[in-house]
Amino acid sequence: MFSLFGRGRKQIVAPKLKPRNKATQTVNRVALGELSPDLPRYLGQAAYLQLSNFETITGAIAGSPTTHDKVALARVARISLNKLEGLIAEIERGGDKPEDLMEHFAAPVERYRSTTRGNDWYETVVTSYITAGMLTDFFTALAEGLPAAPRDRIVTLLTENEPSPIIVEALRSAIDAEPALASRLALWGRRLVGDTLLMARSSLEVPGGSTPDEARLEPIFTELIAAHTRRMDVLGLTA
Amino acid sequence: MFSLFGRGRKQIVAPKLKPRNKATQTVNRVALGELSPDLPRYLGQAAYLQLSNFETITGAIAGSPTTHDKVALARVARISLNKLEGLIAEIERGGDKPEDLMEHFAAPVERYRSTTRGNDWYETVVTSYITAGMLTDFFTALAEGLPAAPRDRIVTLLTENEPSPIIVEALRSAIDAEPALASRLALWGRRLVGDTLLMARSSLEVPGGSTPDEARLEPIFTELIAAHTRRMDVLGLTA
Repeated sequence: MFSLFGRGRKQIVAPKLKPRNKATQTVNRVALGELSPDLPRYLGQAAYLQLSNFETITGAIAGSPTTHDKVALARVARISLNKLEGLIAEIERGGDKPEDLMEHFAAPVERYRSTTRGNDWYETVVTSYITAGMLTDFFTALAEGLPAAPRDRIVTLLTENEPSPIIVEALRSAIDAEPALASRLALWGRRLVGDTLLMARSSLEVPGGSTPDEARLEPIFTELIAAHTRRMDVLGLTA
Repeated sequence: MFSLFGRGRKQIVAPKLKPRNKATQTVNRVALGELSPDLPRYLGQAAYLQLSNFETITGAIAGSPTTHDKVALARVARISLNKLEGLIAEIERGGDKPEDLMEHFAAPVERYRSTTRGNDWYETVVTSYITAGMLTDFFTALAEGLPAAPRDRIVTLLTENEPSPIIVEALRSAIDAEPALASRLALWGRRLVGDTLLMARSSLEVPGGSTPDEARLEPIFTELIAAHTRRMDVLGLTA
């Protein structure tokens, strides 16, 4: 369905995770796979976070500077909604009611959303770009610990139809038109990282409730931050 | 995609237009067909109104009383987004840029949306139910004057996947739980009719800018109001 919207749009290079070498990938896979929550918990949290992202994006539509931006954000909302629907379908496939699994994450995710809420259209769009990007990377990596069949469907769902090119185009136009935005948005982007890493960390299932081994978590968070830096670079902002 | 969301949901009878007899249908077809705007204008206005409805629905997600209601509204948003995308695809099929045709309607539709904005979640959901319902009926009838090929696609697009059952279920649960809501929402529903009829009327292309023949318009508006009454009945509210 995304292609319906895509006609005539100019191509922009999407920020992507740098290809990892095989050794690193294996290390991460083992480390994160062991800390993956069980499937219902994974799905409930991923779905509520996606719902929250959908709220952020659609909440920005009304304040868009132009009708062009409104249409662009509707395209981004469609991608988020597709992911939400796919996660809900996975929950239903497991025989659970989506709202039951999601409910558990309502309070922490709403708190997270309130701490990462932008003060205007530009910050709100940056919030969706940065937080959805980091959390997608994280949940994709975290899926390594899930059973193979749902894992492959979930990874496809999370990684296909990347909304970044649409957001990048909208933000770049805005920054080009008003260069003073750049430093404010650079600060805002940096501001989002800490809360998002904490949100990601709260997803990890720590055996026996003990503190996760920081040394094992470090490469994961290092990689999330590196991807964040590349995302900010694409906007011409310092991370 | 709607079916993905539909599993396990209990069936609720959707309010439908009463079947018209053939004579009436012919009268309306001739009357409205002659007043239909040209295709680009029709599509631009229909698309902006759909975007506005999408904003109304998604704006209500954050204030939903329960996660169940959030998921329900995401389902309604999906239906609205499908219609918006379909209208945008029709615009692109005609070689126009969606935002160019839509832009013309930004100011009047935003004014309409501000006058029909609910004061809380319940009123906002009633706004979407009533205004999207009436405008869908109206634009479906208005499509009679369009060329056959886009007309059939547009009518299918506007009338398939009716969101009312989801909204009716959510509102009925709310009213059952708090019966005092009924009179406030009944008043609110009535409040929406006038502005929505004016919005519909502004779509009519009047030859030479003269005043439309009220006698010819009357059956159209009578029918819209009758359908409104049935929609309110389904909620157990007086129209």
